[in-house]
Amino acid sequence: MPGTRLDLERIRSARALIDPLFLDTPLYPCEALGAELGCTVSIKLETANPVRSFKGRGTELVAAGLADRDARAVVCASAGNLGQALAWSGRRRGLDVTVWASAAAPTVKLDRIRALGARLELVDGDFDLARERAADAACSEGVRLVEDSLDLETCEGAATMGLELVDSGADVVMISLGGGAMATGVGHVLKTLAPDTEVVCVQPEGAPAMTRSWRERRVVTTDTIDTIADGVAGRRPIPEVLDDLLLVADDAVLVREASIVVGMRMLLEHAGLVVEPSAALGVAAVLEDPERFAGRHVVTIVCGGNVDPDAHRRWVGLDGP
Amino acid sequence: MPGTRLDLERIRSARALIDPLFLDTPLYPCEALGAELGCTVSIKLETANPVRSFKGRGTELVAAGLADRDARAVVCASAGNLGQALAWSGRRRGLDVTVWASAAAPTVKLDRIRALGARLELVDGDFDLARERAADAACSEGVRLVEDSLDLETCEGAATMGLELVDSGADVVMISLGGGAMATGVGHVLKTLAPDTEVVCVQPEGAPAMTRSWRERRVVTTDTIDTIADGVAGRRPIPEVLDDLLLVADDAVLVREASIVVGMRMLLEHAGLVVEPSAALGVAAVLEDPERFAGRHVVTIVCGGNVDPDAHRRWVGLDGP
Repeated sequence: MPGTRLDLERIRSARALIDPLFLDTPLYPCEALGAELGCTVSIKLETANPVRSFKGRGTELVAAGLADRDARAVVCASAGNLGQALAWSGRRRGLDVTVWASAAAPTVKLDRIRALGARLELVDGDFDLARERAADAACSEGVRLVEDSLDLETCEGAATMGLELVDSGADVVMISLGGGAMATGVGHVLKTLAPDTEVVCVQPEGAPAMTRSWRERRVVTTDTIDTIADGVAGRRPIPEVLDDLLLVADDAVLVREASIVVGMRMLLEHAGLVVEPSAALGVAAVLEDPERFAGRHVVTIVCGGNVDPDAHRRWVGLDGP
Repeated sequence: MPGTRLDLERIRSARALIDPLFLDTPLYPCEALGAELGCTVSIKLETANPVRSFKGRGTELVAAGLADRDARAVVCASAGNLGQALAWSGRRRGLDVTVWASAAAPTVKLDRIRALGARLELVDGDFDLARERAADAACSEGVRLVEDSLDLETCEGAATMGLELVDSGADVVMISLGGGAMATGVGHVLKTLAPDTEVVCVQPEGAPAMTRSWRERRVVTTDTIDTIADGVAGRRPIPEVLDDLLLVADDAVLVREASIVVGMRMLLEHAGLVVEPSAALGVAAVLEDPERFAGRHVVTIVCGGNVDPDAHRRWVGLDGP
């Protein structure tokens, strides 16, 4: 059992606190996609829920804990999906939710955060600036700050997905890597209960900070972000999360933008799914290294479907690499 | 309890015979779609499985029964989805599957039937001609013929979906109506266990035979089919199925082609789902009669996602009515 901050018994207990809408999501073979990729592909579908991403698993834990303590408000920074999920989980428990986000986040994500009743504060900068501002606001208002990937609820919430993958028979599970909540959460469970399953994290070449950190075994930050995969675009890995990731990831790979686009198109054509770029990273990684995955059973987590329709149309209409 | 051919206890027992891949499918609110339609909309998603339609629920029962009796082969006629599902269920039990279909069925459906290892026999005519040919072939070969909607496994398999809708809190459940397996199956369970839930069947104006039959309480056939909703396009309702439908449907409505297209586009834009025309009938019906559904909780069953990508792109790129 890896010595991460996560705890298997807490993860198992967490299921009882999460709305069943977010649990036991579909896990199914997609032969048409597998035929294209030269391996057996199963999809773990995290988009068929009210917020169209896996983030509800974690925000349910956060909001349940806050409601237990009679809290009234909560603040987070978000690339767009955590904010929607926290807005959803907070609304049903009567919490005032404030979300800090980059003004450059996809419009559809910002609109949905507002539609779910949260207060949205935009910053003229990227996600890491939104993180700073959210921290300042939470501190000055004396309100709980939810820090994605650092706060254990976000990791252990995502880890409930791992429980659903233990018996999948997967040789490899491909996990999109951003802040690391999903990778450390799912990875912790797999390394504990299905240690032979390879845990491969995937990040865009244009937002490689956590992957570089994992490879160098120390926090490596980057100055800029250059990727369409907004959901995983961070520049400053969190040390505690990196420590956990070092214990549970078998590999971390970087993929090109063109491969992400082809991945999105393949998921559309062969699985009928509109996915955001961050959810196509696993397919992109197989596309870039087919020999590595040939003939193996690859589970790829389709972790989010919040994408501007116009951008999606533009991307999937493009030619591949 | 309605006096149909279906039996609630058999339906409950059926769950144990069906691969869990097809059971307990997502049921979730889609607020973005509800905001467009002026009601609370929940999606029952039947496409996140290996054959991208609900038909696996029924074919699992058929194939399990045949395997129990050491049968070697099975024949069906199909508009395209039953054939895929029977091919999938038969393949894993070592059955030789032959599917009769119209040569005009969507290429993607025919290709998938072949890819799943079934023998595909095409007829130069519509689904009802394929039904005749399949019956002749099964008879001359002494092989079990699966007749969609007539054979109880197909209805009671679909009815397992009804068990998953009983506690949905729905005011209305919208069910696409073709041969009637899904409508009688889901309808039977709802009228038994949630009798206050309105069961509304939806058919295209261009393939109205079963709806007209329901309204006139006698079998009404049509000479032609004129709809893009290939999955529900039949001309000759089966008398036994009509009898059941009369006992469980609260209404049967017809929708225009343009509304089906808008429904497909809305499901793409607001739910991120590529659906076949037959799966957009429920949304189309709400679009055509918004007052009827205003403020109510409508569950719409997204029953299939097998659509030619080019046709889908063409449809969702069109302007609405």
